Amino acid sequence: MEIKNSERIDDLEFKGLKIIQDKKGFCFGIDSVLLSDFAKKIKKDSKVIDLGTGTGIINILLSGKTDASSFVGVEIQQDVAEMAERSIKLNYLEDKIKIINENITKLKNIYKPNSFDVVVTNPPYKKINTGIVNNENKKIISRHEITASLQDFIHISSYLLKDYGEIYMVHRPERLVDIFSIMRTEKIEPKLIKFVYPNKNKKTNLVLIKGIKKGKPFLEFDKNLYIHNDDGTYTNEILKIYNKEKK
Amino acid sequence: MEIKNSERIDDLEFKGLKIIQDKKGFCFGIDSVLLSDFAKKIKKDSKVIDLGTGTGIINILLSGKTDASSFVGVEIQQDVAEMAERSIKLNYLEDKIKIINENITKLKNIYKPNSFDVVVTNPPYKKINTGIVNNENKKIISRHEITASLQDFIHISSYLLKDYGEIYMVHRPERLVDIFSIMRTEKIEPKLIKFVYPNKNKKTNLVLIKGIKKGKPFLEFDKNLYIHNDDGTYTNEILKIYNKEKK
Repeated sequence: MEIKNSERIDDLEFKGLKIIQDKKGFCFGIDSVLLSDFAKKIKKDSKVIDLGTGTGIINILLSGKTDASSFVGVEIQQDVAEMAERSIKLNYLEDKIKIINENITKLKNIYKPNSFDVVVTNPPYKKINTGIVNNENKKIISRHEITASLQDFIHISSYLLKDYGEIYMVHRPERLVDIFSIMRTEKIEPKLIKFVYPNKNKKTNLVLIKGIKKGKPFLEFDKNLYIHNDDGTYTNEILKIYNKEKK
Repeated sequence: MEIKNSERIDDLEFKGLKIIQDKKGFCFGIDSVLLSDFAKKIKKDSKVIDLGTGTGIINILLSGKTDASSFVGVEIQQDVAEMAERSIKLNYLEDKIKIINENITKLKNIYKPNSFDVVVTNPPYKKINTGIVNNENKKIISRHEITASLQDFIHISSYLLKDYGEIYMVHRPERLVDIFSIMRTEKIEPKLIKFVYPNKNKKTNLVLIKGIKKGKPFLEFDKNLYIHNDDGTYTNEILKIYNKEKK
């Protein structure tokens, strides 16, 4: 497997899975790992689509954690999509995971409605014109709603999902009102929410949401997840998610 | 001050304030105390209205905790409204707090739009036909959305509030999607949220929300509030709210 000078191969330390990342690009973070863990109970033989797949990390992890039958990863940036494709080959997962280089807003041209059982997505967190815009174009697209808005992500998810199909999303807590109100407008009912905290004394900085298309209103709260203990070490929950639990 | 056989007078242990409660009715709970604390930073000279005032507890506490100029408490149940009125007299607060015996849905007949700076409300938590319906009629009305829905509470709040006026609400976390989406539809932006937990190991069972009419979208998270320590005693935060902090 050839990799470019600007790239590196990281060992995911899980079932021998590996991933190619661009050192100067947007490397996957703990949010993708937590989202894969949050979504790991998806049903056997599910057809899964990851909207804004980036390095492909979520599908690659889910291919190891679940018995889903197939995965699609949609990525707008051609070179990122091509890199994700090489990661898939590196893991011999070509039969299971397919990469589509397209804007998620164009997926109606490719898929019929109700084509998927599960959507997973780690969309850009920031609205356009908010926050410090990063100089690197790739990072801008990954972090800001430039090529597709949260509304676009949720709208296409609702289109792609079968009735009672599930969406798993990771996002910033400050966008929770946007997420809930757009989901409801798009007939996706938020059913489960999990807040992630840097530690027990800090405020939540990440939120995991499970929604069900045409689900009945009733929001459940999953246990809060703390990344670090008071002494700065990782909590047992995090070590477990990273398969580094102490025996 | 006369009280009925079925009633008792409770000392609020705060600035000498007292309250009359019906032993068989819906006595005020920790949710009202927490809501008063959550709303205690309202501006000097604010005009405040409490929608579904019940015993009048929230306005009575806020009259001691804030420099608001006037309070209105709206209560649909005639005997409960009359009891709240007697509590107000008991505290010599007739000049500051006024009780209106009316359905909150009828307030457009009484008040012009944009008449208040602050709305506080502890609305019924349960939808009709959900949960165990209590035999006592008073408790049904206090706990279930029989005479007014969450939509009604938020709609009338938006009508009553001035632009950039504030609403403080306490509710159940499972209704958060309803609250957020209805608020946004009604032009009230949820700006601050605080989750309340029975203790650090349990799930949140109460949520405090501050919304601003025509506010800009951005949700902040206040520190979580835990009622009990691991050993079952009250936490310092709770003792502080109840003015029983250890010196």
